[in-house]
Amino acid sequence: MPPRSPLAPVETPTPPPISGVRLAAAACEIRYRGRKDAALIAFEPGSSIAGVLTRSLTASAPVELCRRHLKAGRARAILVNAGNANAFTGRLGETAVRRSAAAVASALGCKTGEVFLASTGIIGEPLPVERLEQGIPGLVAGLRPDGWRAAAEAIMTTDTFVKVATRATEIAGKPVQINGIAKGSGMIAPDMATMLAFVATDAKLPAAVLRRLIRDGADRSFNAITVDGDTSTSDTLLLVATGKGAGHKPVRSATDAHLRKFRAALEALLVDLAVQVVRDGEGAQKLITVDVAGAASDKAARVIALAIANSPLVKTAVAGADANWGRIVMAVGKAGERADRDRLVVSIGGVAVAAKGQRVAGYDEAPVAAHMKGRDIRIAVDVGVGRGKARVWSCDLTHGYIEINADYRS
Amino acid sequence: MPPRSPLAPVETPTPPPISGVRLAAAACEIRYRGRKDAALIAFEPGSSIAGVLTRSLTASAPVELCRRHLKAGRARAILVNAGNANAFTGRLGETAVRRSAAAVASALGCKTGEVFLASTGIIGEPLPVERLEQGIPGLVAGLRPDGWRAAAEAIMTTDTFVKVATRATEIAGKPVQINGIAKGSGMIAPDMATMLAFVATDAKLPAAVLRRLIRDGADRSFNAITVDGDTSTSDTLLLVATGKGAGHKPVRSATDAHLRKFRAALEALLVDLAVQVVRDGEGAQKLITVDVAGAASDKAARVIALAIANSPLVKTAVAGADANWGRIVMAVGKAGERADRDRLVVSIGGVAVAAKGQRVAGYDEAPVAAHMKGRDIRIAVDVGVGRGKARVWSCDLTHGYIEINADYRS
Repeated sequence: MPPRSPLAPVETPTPPPISGVRLAAAACEIRYRGRKDAALIAFEPGSSIAGVLTRSLTASAPVELCRRHLKAGRARAILVNAGNANAFTGRLGETAVRRSAAAVASALGCKTGEVFLASTGIIGEPLPVERLEQGIPGLVAGLRPDGWRAAAEAIMTTDTFVKVATRATEIAGKPVQINGIAKGSGMIAPDMATMLAFVATDAKLPAAVLRRLIRDGADRSFNAITVDGDTSTSDTLLLVATGKGAGHKPVRSATDAHLRKFRAALEALLVDLAVQVVRDGEGAQKLITVDVAGAASDKAARVIALAIANSPLVKTAVAGADANWGRIVMAVGKAGERADRDRLVVSIGGVAVAAKGQRVAGYDEAPVAAHMKGRDIRIAVDVGVGRGKARVWSCDLTHGYIEINADYRS
Repeated sequence: MPPRSPLAPVETPTPPPISGVRLAAAACEIRYRGRKDAALIAFEPGSSIAGVLTRSLTASAPVELCRRHLKAGRARAILVNAGNANAFTGRLGETAVRRSAAAVASALGCKTGEVFLASTGIIGEPLPVERLEQGIPGLVAGLRPDGWRAAAEAIMTTDTFVKVATRATEIAGKPVQINGIAKGSGMIAPDMATMLAFVATDAKLPAAVLRRLIRDGADRSFNAITVDGDTSTSDTLLLVATGKGAGHKPVRSATDAHLRKFRAALEALLVDLAVQVVRDGEGAQKLITVDVAGAASDKAARVIALAIANSPLVKTAVAGADANWGRIVMAVGKAGERADRDRLVVSIGGVAVAAKGQRVAGYDEAPVAAHMKGRDIRIAVDVGVGRGKARVWSCDLTHGYIEINADYRS
C-alpha cells in the first residue's frame, strides 16, 4: 500500500444521513483479502437517478448495464465492487452483471432495472460473481443510514485516502442535503484506478432534471480533471434523488430559479470529489490548477486548458519546480483552438511571465520560483481572442507515477 | 551530455554527395560553447522545394518564414541553428529571421525568398542574430559536397546520436540519390527537442510534385511517431530536388508510374529518420511499433494507433516489461474511432493475447513475457470493423524521461 498522498485533505468529513438512503460494506474476497471490497447503496422507492458514463468504446459490462437502466431513471440500489472491473470479459461479463443485478433485486424486492452496478479493478479477468452473490444477503442486512464512510472505504483500489464530500443547501427555502463518495487515483487505468462517484440527495427531483444537473456538473468537475489523459473503461458517476427530505416545492425544470443554490452546492460537491481524485493522482506531489480565459468559447477554453494539463512536458516541469512557460505556450499551440500568439498572456502563481508574444521584460523570477516550490500550482493563460473560460485540475508527473505504473502488475 | 541511447543504430551511414548540394557547419556560439551549432545547406540554381511544418498555432518565427517562402517553391539555401528556437520572441523574432535570410541571400547572390530557416533550442529568449550573421561568411566558404554528417552534428540539441539516412533509387531507369539528416529526441519539447529534418535529392521534380510526395511521406513517417504527444512550435521537414542528377525523363505528376521506386525509397528514408528520432526519445529504453488493422479507414487506424502509442499507461507498462493488454484495450476505447469490442484482437510480439471480447483462454505467457523484456516491442491490434490500417512508432515512458524533463532548465 503506497503512503497517503501528500496532497490528501487534512480531515475526512463525516456525512450526515440522507433520508431514504442506507449503505453497507462487506468483504467478498473478489480479489483482496482481509478488507471490505463491496458496497451496497439502497434507496427508498420513488428515487430517481441520472448518470454520466465513460465514453470509452470498450466500456465494461456494468457500464453497459447502467446505460440501459438509466433510461427509465428509477433507482433502488447501486452495488459496487473493487478488485475486478468486469471489463473485456465477453459473454461471461454480461452473465455476471445480469446475475448480480437479479440477486440484488430479489433481496430488496425491486425490479432488476432499478439496480445499478459498478466494478473497478483488474480488467480481462472473469468476475467471480458467485462471491458477490454470496455477499448480498450480508450487505442487505448491514444497510444503515450512517454507512457513507464504510462504503467509500470498500470501493478504494490504489487510492491512498478515502474520498467523501457533503453539502447542506436548500430548495425554495427548505433544507436539502447532498452526500457523495468517490474513488480513483488516475483518470485512468483500467487496472485499478477507474474513477467512480456516487452522489445522493434527499431533494425531490425528476430524472430529467437530474440528467441536466449531472451533465452540467460533470463538465465542470469530473470532466475537468486529468491525471494522465487516459480514459477508463469503467468511469461512472451516478446521482440519486430520494425525495424524502423536508418537502420543497416541486421542481420541474433544471433551470428553475429555486434550484440556484442546489445547483451551486451540487457543483461544489462534485468539484470537491473530483479534485480529491486529482490529489490522489498516481505519484502526485503537486496539484495544478489551470485557468484559461480569452478563448473563442468555454468549450475551446477547456480544450486548451486540458492540453496544458495533459502535457507531459508541463507536468514534468511542475514536478521539477521549473517555471517553464515555454512549455505552456507549446501546449496552447498544439491544442488546435484559436489563440493569438501576439496577445497571449501566461501567468504563474499570479505573476505575468509572458505577454504580447514574448517574455515579460524583467519580470521578477523570485516569487514565481517560490510558488513553483509549493504544493498548489496555479497556471493562468489568456489567449486573447474572446470571452470563453474554463478551469481544470491536474497533477505533476513524477518518478512515483512511473514506479506505480511500470511495476504494478509484474 | 546524456549517454548514447541504447536504441541508437550501431552504425551511422556516410551519405554520398548529391549533385547540386553543398553543406557546411560552424560554431556561432548561439548558446553552446566549444561545438558547431549552425549549418548551411546550399543548392544550385533551379532547385525546387516543398515542406511540412508544425501545425502549432504558436509557431516560431522561422516556421512562419518557411511557410511564406514555400509558396514559390524555389530554394537556394537552408540555414539552421541549434541552441535557440527563436520562438515566442515577438517582433525581435521577426526581425531576426528577416536579417538572417537577407544575409544568406546576399552571401550566395540569391533572392531572400529562396532562403529557408530553422531554429531549435530554448524558446522565449531573443536569438542573438548578429552571431549568426557573423558566422555566415565562414559557412559559405566552408560549403562542400561531403558535409552531410557535419551538418547533422551541428543541429543536434538533446540528441544522443547523429541522425543521417541515405537511399539510392531510380526514376525511369536513371539513378537518383536521396540523403537526409534529422534531429530530435522527443516530438516535442519547445526547449531543445524540436524535430527538424532536411532531405535532398538530385532528381528533377517540380515543387507541386514534391509537395504531394512530402505530405504523403510525412504521414507515414514523421506524423506517425510520438515520444510524448507534445507538438513543438518549430517542427520542420523540408525536401529539396536539385535536378542535377543523371537526367531522367521529366515527371509532371506525383502519381507518375516512373516515380514508384522513388516514392518507396523516399518513404523508407523518411521512416528511417523518423524512427531514429523515436530511438532517441527522451529516456527511451524500448522501441514500440504499433500496428492497427481492421479499422474503418487508414485515418481511423492511425488515430487508434496513436492513442495506444501516446498512452502513458501503455508506455509505462512497456517500461515495466508488463504485457498489460488491458491498457491497450483501454487506449483503443478512448481513441473515439469505431471498434468492435467483441471482435477485437490484441497481439503482443506476434502472440494473440485477447480476442472476441476476452482474454485468449490459456494463451502461453512465456514467449510474450520474453518479448516484453526485449528492446523491440511489437503491439498489433485488429479492431474488427473494416480494412483501414496504420503503423506508428513510440517508445516507453521511463524514469529517464522524468529526469530529463523535470530537471532540464533548473
